[in-house]
Amino acid sequence: MKNEKITSSTVDFAKWYTDVVNAAQLASYTSVKGCIAILPNGYAIWEKMQNELDQKFKELGHVNVQMPLLIPEGLLNKEKELVEGFAPEVAWVTMGGSKELEERLCIRPTSETVFCDFYKNFIKSYKDLPLLYNQWCNVLRWEKETRPFLRSREFLWQEGHTIHSTKEEAENETKRMIEVYKWFHHEILAIPSIIGLKTEKEKFAGAEYTYTNEALMFNGVTLQCGTSHYFGQKFSKSYDIKFTNKNNNEEYAYQTSWGTTTRMIGAVIMVHGDDKGLVLPPKIAPKQVVIIPIGTDEKVVLLSKKIDDKLNKNNITSYIDLSEKSPGYKFAEAEVNGIPIRIEIGKRDLENNSITLVRRDTSEKIIINADSNLVESINELLETIQKDMYHRALKRREELTFEAKNLEEVQNIMNNKPGFIKACWCGDAACELKMKEIKGLKSRCILENEKLISDKCVVCGKQAKELVVWGIQY
Amino acid sequence: MKNEKITSSTVDFAKWYTDVVNAAQLASYTSVKGCIAILPNGYAIWEKMQNELDQKFKELGHVNVQMPLLIPEGLLNKEKELVEGFAPEVAWVTMGGSKELEERLCIRPTSETVFCDFYKNFIKSYKDLPLLYNQWCNVLRWEKETRPFLRSREFLWQEGHTIHSTKEEAENETKRMIEVYKWFHHEILAIPSIIGLKTEKEKFAGAEYTYTNEALMFNGVTLQCGTSHYFGQKFSKSYDIKFTNKNNNEEYAYQTSWGTTTRMIGAVIMVHGDDKGLVLPPKIAPKQVVIIPIGTDEKVVLLSKKIDDKLNKNNITSYIDLSEKSPGYKFAEAEVNGIPIRIEIGKRDLENNSITLVRRDTSEKIIINADSNLVESINELLETIQKDMYHRALKRREELTFEAKNLEEVQNIMNNKPGFIKACWCGDAACELKMKEIKGLKSRCILENEKLISDKCVVCGKQAKELVVWGIQY
Repeated sequence: MKNEKITSSTVDFAKWYTDVVNAAQLASYTSVKGCIAILPNGYAIWEKMQNELDQKFKELGHVNVQMPLLIPEGLLNKEKELVEGFAPEVAWVTMGGSKELEERLCIRPTSETVFCDFYKNFIKSYKDLPLLYNQWCNVLRWEKETRPFLRSREFLWQEGHTIHSTKEEAENETKRMIEVYKWFHHEILAIPSIIGLKTEKEKFAGAEYTYTNEALMFNGVTLQCGTSHYFGQKFSKSYDIKFTNKNNNEEYAYQTSWGTTTRMIGAVIMVHGDDKGLVLPPKIAPKQVVIIPIGTDEKVVLLSKKIDDKLNKNNITSYIDLSEKSPGYKFAEAEVNGIPIRIEIGKRDLENNSITLVRRDTSEKIIINADSNLVESINELLETIQKDMYHRALKRREELTFEAKNLEEVQNIMNNKPGFIKACWCGDAACELKMKEIKGLKSRCILENEKLISDKCVVCGKQAKELVVWGIQY
Repeated sequence: MKNEKITSSTVDFAKWYTDVVNAAQLASYTSVKGCIAILPNGYAIWEKMQNELDQKFKELGHVNVQMPLLIPEGLLNKEKELVEGFAPEVAWVTMGGSKELEERLCIRPTSETVFCDFYKNFIKSYKDLPLLYNQWCNVLRWEKETRPFLRSREFLWQEGHTIHSTKEEAENETKRMIEVYKWFHHEILAIPSIIGLKTEKEKFAGAEYTYTNEALMFNGVTLQCGTSHYFGQKFSKSYDIKFTNKNNNEEYAYQTSWGTTTRMIGAVIMVHGDDKGLVLPPKIAPKQVVIIPIGTDEKVVLLSKKIDDKLNKNNITSYIDLSEKSPGYKFAEAEVNGIPIRIEIGKRDLENNSITLVRRDTSEKIIINADSNLVESINELLETIQKDMYHRALKRREELTFEAKNLEEVQNIMNNKPGFIKACWCGDAACELKMKEIKGLKSRCILENEKLISDKCVVCGKQAKELVVWGIQY
């Protein structure tokens, strides 16, 4: 059943997205332009994401820190490319209390400069390295157009900042962390992201190179879902971070950074959602099961409570809806909120000694015997849902991945439905710009390990150097 | 053994404090005046604190949200008392990108205004209430004098903001949460804080009343460790937050807020620390046990690893120090970092079939049989340490709690060693100010449930109304 509060995605995708955010009470607009309030339903999803990532980071030897929110202008200005990349979109603090500041402070858009400033004083010898630091925090970028979770002025993220005594180690860290994000997307969010290199134009300001995870939303638009940057010695030279190496020589250190954000909540909505609302992969669903008793029969309520208790004791997060709303209303509410499994228990189920499970992702009804091992059945079903959601998203990604050898083919694809367009590229920024004329297509990433599908650039026809995935971006 | 990097607390308490913060690598100064970097050792303690509190909040029905960092000036100005209390100490954002903003935005010093702005639009009926919201975030106050953890411009905290349909429910929440902080201090941090009401002068700007937890550091100075505010309808009237009550009438809502901060790391240092460094209560120690093999004997290292493995598998966080430093250096390092239990294993221990445990809090050595149940022994010892630390702090608090009936008695106490001074008060702000002349004594809190110790005000000698605890504050 369609939800009345939600515009159909086929009618207006952008409106559908905002309607889902509102109807599922994930976030709310605020009096501060471009900044959202993340509401309990949204924040609980973020907490699940944080737990998964944080545990993984720590298993790999990373430790959490907290660096200052504010960056003095002089410190920001030390890395030329970084400042050119970020200066147009930072917020400036110019007054403290009633006094004008001698030096402006910007609110961090990202914290490379602050970490560099710390490393500079902290690191003396190769014995102090590597430092594998991460922080969970808020950042601010003065965006002009904003959309809840996808692009807002303030957002929450984690930013890893590591520093190493060898190039090799730092490059391995860069690759390792983009693989961690891939694991996170594939295994936890059921989103089959792809990995590739950003072009010179699209890479992080100040990086030698940037790996990216790109994902496809169900309308064929692409979303950058995590990036991992290799800085080499660029920042360490700008910020004078030297250490004494094993040969007792001074050397500039090698650095990386990597991050992912609350934008992932938007990705989950746009990869898995439908016209009934949110569909949450079980691994990040704050509540995995909702139990809805049909009617007020005492035995029904008693059994519902018993089941709720049993599930929660067995590490399945469940809740029971005993409010005075109608069952239909409760169903719709659980659907809007994306709860993976709904358990319905009515008088007839009691008589038949059965329990009805309903999958959120497929609406499939599964009737099981009340005497069977419910915990096991639910656990199996949660696993199945997680896998099925991934495979559906993968199938869609494959269906929406196209190949093009020239601009006409690109145009034909785009006249139909957008997606990942694989096409070869000569490496010239002018050709990259030319692609943008077709409905704003941008290079998403360079595929390093796939064979070129043509020896000619899709735009100019000259010698192709790279196989690039193109797409429309959020 | 004294640590060389740490000034003795009897020589210079302030220097001792900073030395411990540095030697234990809890925090570091940064290029941003008054803002610290919280380093891995410090942040890991904060994470332990967060876990304990967050779990408790959730058990009591609170949910986490995230409101914006920035507050438009017009929004801040709606509550007169709040703006007077905080305006002198906020940082103002006046530029976004390269454009001057039409309205200045302040970085949140606290978020009552932002929550009110949200509640105003969100709440319609008593059925929407209560909302028990909390957020973990950074805040900024433009302090002039700062000290790591105790008072810094930016700090991390949690701020609970709840809204209710009845006065009674809101007042109960205010009391419940100050009791939660007391539980946190007593049971988790081993700090015997006391609870009382703030005077009119010391209460939170905009609150009807403020409950506070006050703790005594080992040098007799007091520290505010958590506050819980009852707002009644003050904010709801300023921000126009109305709901339809059960009688179908419009009514202004009742609100509370409560918070505690990274300052608690400072409290732990100053309640439990010594000249060797940090002493961590086991319940917030990121690492509870360090294993130090003496010598490089293969069997010794093997046994060390076996023990480390066993402890970690049994939920005791331990690590093994296999670095090339000398045992003495490793001991000192573990001591500086406050690790509750050190396990030493040498060749002689192997021969004697024994294991040596050393308590950080008392330096006591405990030799146990290698065949005994090590996990059980360690768990018991961790519990004993936690309890002993609490009781030592409680005994000290009692020894440093004094009573005074007139200013001469106050002066005599303060000439010796400061502490909690219980003295009666007429309720006149002038007398409160007068007390400040004696080494800066301030009212810490009003004890509601204790009998007056005199019928005369300690300052003016007129009729006493309240029994107040006075102290020097950080």
